Amino acid sequence: MLRPDHCLRFRSPPAITGVPVPAPTFFPALSPIAGPRRQLRGALRPLRARPALLIVRASASMDAAVARAPEMAQREVARALAAEAEARLGPRLLPSAVPADVAEFRNGAGNAVGSLGVRRGAPGSSIDFMMQSSLHCKVPNGAIDITSILIFLNASTDAPHFLMELIQGSPTSIVVVLDLLPRKDLALHPEYLQKYYENTQLDKQRGKIYELPQTRPYLSPSLFVRSAVSPTAISVSIDCGQGGESALEEIIRGQLAMVAKEVLQIWLDNCADSTTEMEETERMCLVKRDNTVRSKSIEVDLTANLPRMFDPDVSSRVIAEIRKAFGVQES
Amino acid sequence: MLRPDHCLRFRSPPAITGVPVPAPTFFPALSPIAGPRRQLRGALRPLRARPALLIVRASASMDAAVARAPEMAQREVARALAAEAEARLGPRLLPSAVPADVAEFRNGAGNAVGSLGVRRGAPGSSIDFMMQSSLHCKVPNGAIDITSILIFLNASTDAPHFLMELIQGSPTSIVVVLDLLPRKDLALHPEYLQKYYENTQLDKQRGKIYELPQTRPYLSPSLFVRSAVSPTAISVSIDCGQGGESALEEIIRGQLAMVAKEVLQIWLDNCADSTTEMEETERMCLVKRDNTVRSKSIEVDLTANLPRMFDPDVSSRVIAEIRKAFGVQES
Repeated sequence: MLRPDHCLRFRSPPAITGVPVPAPTFFPALSPIAGPRRQLRGALRPLRARPALLIVRASASMDAAVARAPEMAQREVARALAAEAEARLGPRLLPSAVPADVAEFRNGAGNAVGSLGVRRGAPGSSIDFMMQSSLHCKVPNGAIDITSILIFLNASTDAPHFLMELIQGSPTSIVVVLDLLPRKDLALHPEYLQKYYENTQLDKQRGKIYELPQTRPYLSPSLFVRSAVSPTAISVSIDCGQGGESALEEIIRGQLAMVAKEVLQIWLDNCADSTTEMEETERMCLVKRDNTVRSKSIEVDLTANLPRMFDPDVSSRVIAEIRKAFGVQES
Repeated sequence: MLRPDHCLRFRSPPAITGVPVPAPTFFPALSPIAGPRRQLRGALRPLRARPALLIVRASASMDAAVARAPEMAQREVARALAAEAEARLGPRLLPSAVPADVAEFRNGAGNAVGSLGVRRGAPGSSIDFMMQSSLHCKVPNGAIDITSILIFLNASTDAPHFLMELIQGSPTSIVVVLDLLPRKDLALHPEYLQKYYENTQLDKQRGKIYELPQTRPYLSPSLFVRSAVSPTAISVSIDCGQGGESALEEIIRGQLAMVAKEVLQIWLDNCADSTTEMEETERMCLVKRDNTVRSKSIEVDLTANLPRMFDPDVSSRVIAEIRKAFGVQES
């Protein structure tokens, strides 16, 4: 999805410092403080993330318009992952029904392009929707690339949703959020925690990313977001430092792709086919919780940020489709 | 409270590596993986925490028996904090009623001492209990010192509990857990999150600790524990490295003491005097959640670990008092 930091400013001088600004779309944008600062004796001081000021609706003096989002490792990995999910889910997903001018869209100045795909679950399926999105936005000195895959389940099951977001503001660093989003209060339902998070050994997958020396924890400035993710959530910035382009590419295509595939597999094996017998009060609570999480992420996210990257008519069209998928009413 | 890692072994050769084993008492013991490992070019490789094997019920060849827990910065800080809480809560706390042989207790071999104080809330008070505990255990090459303060509220309010635990296995490193433990599902109750965590600016306090270069996030291996803490929880290991004894002491007496005092103040101002109007179903849910959190921490914690540090008669006496305070039945 399409949601850079709310610190994005328009028509201001560009001043990009530190780790790129855009934050995971599903999660409200934030000053991307990517973890404890380190003073490292003799070592390279890691980039400290600060909100960046970016011109994203550029003047005509910008480079030639972007035709489409460039091929890069994050898009390949996301594409492969989405293909795997779609192959497994098969007829349980309806074809994408977004209008053509939302399936592919661009900024009038030509420096930003995006795509959105929304496949609703077929009748009787436990899938609510599968959403894929991609954004590429040229900025002075580089570009922002955001790719995301969300697979949300409906109220016929209480199993976790699937979420992956990759936000890259430079060739040498990326923010990764990969999680099975819980739909119940874990402290009240330890059996749910055990079923979906302990028995599946999800934390081992988390460990494989966190043990990479280039990672730092990425802590959302939004307390709500921190509350919404699971205790096994992967939320990191991976920074390979100056000259680390191929190192990052290797990580994205290697360890990250492998872990993302494993996490998706766990979700497909344990959640995608799940249905849950529920008392009516339980189901009402589940629906209420789902709606709170959806509306607080949508409303904080998209409505604040998407219009900053795209012209009003474009952003409102895209937002409308996303709201429709999430089932969140226009406020 | 008194709960080192479940990896403690008895009557095995000592082999202490890395960061000390004992884990926050309230939270189940674990292999203390204190955060992402770092390969730092030219810098000191940070200690990677691994479970340690310790002899804690020593043979007679150990050093002379410990008379009492030694004075050290963590105890001073905890003492000052407890005094502040008690002064403010005043007559809302009854005097401590633990038997003398639980108020102070020791290991038969003489290498471990502990103390426990439990003050119940006065009738009509929103305080359930205030618990303070201290443990000192000599081990080969050093000692383990654990100090904790818990102030739990009862069902007349849904405000968060107060928790601080300091676990120190060497003069140069310490694990700190400091939190206002939420009692409601934050994703379902964003207004609760806003009231107790956003409006109070608790995250600023967290930031003051996390910005210290010697800190690394401390992630409990217990997924339940990770789910039980708040999104503003301070959970860190602070490691000042070889020769860093006075640096650590300075941090404990300085930044840590200051932040702990601020967090306690926030709790005293916003939670301690709170009462909440609740529907009966809400109150039942609160009580059920409270009991789940209490029993899963007690049962995983104490019963596994306390007997490893103290003789059976001592540990069972102490456990019984703690269970009584928490209102958790003998299983």
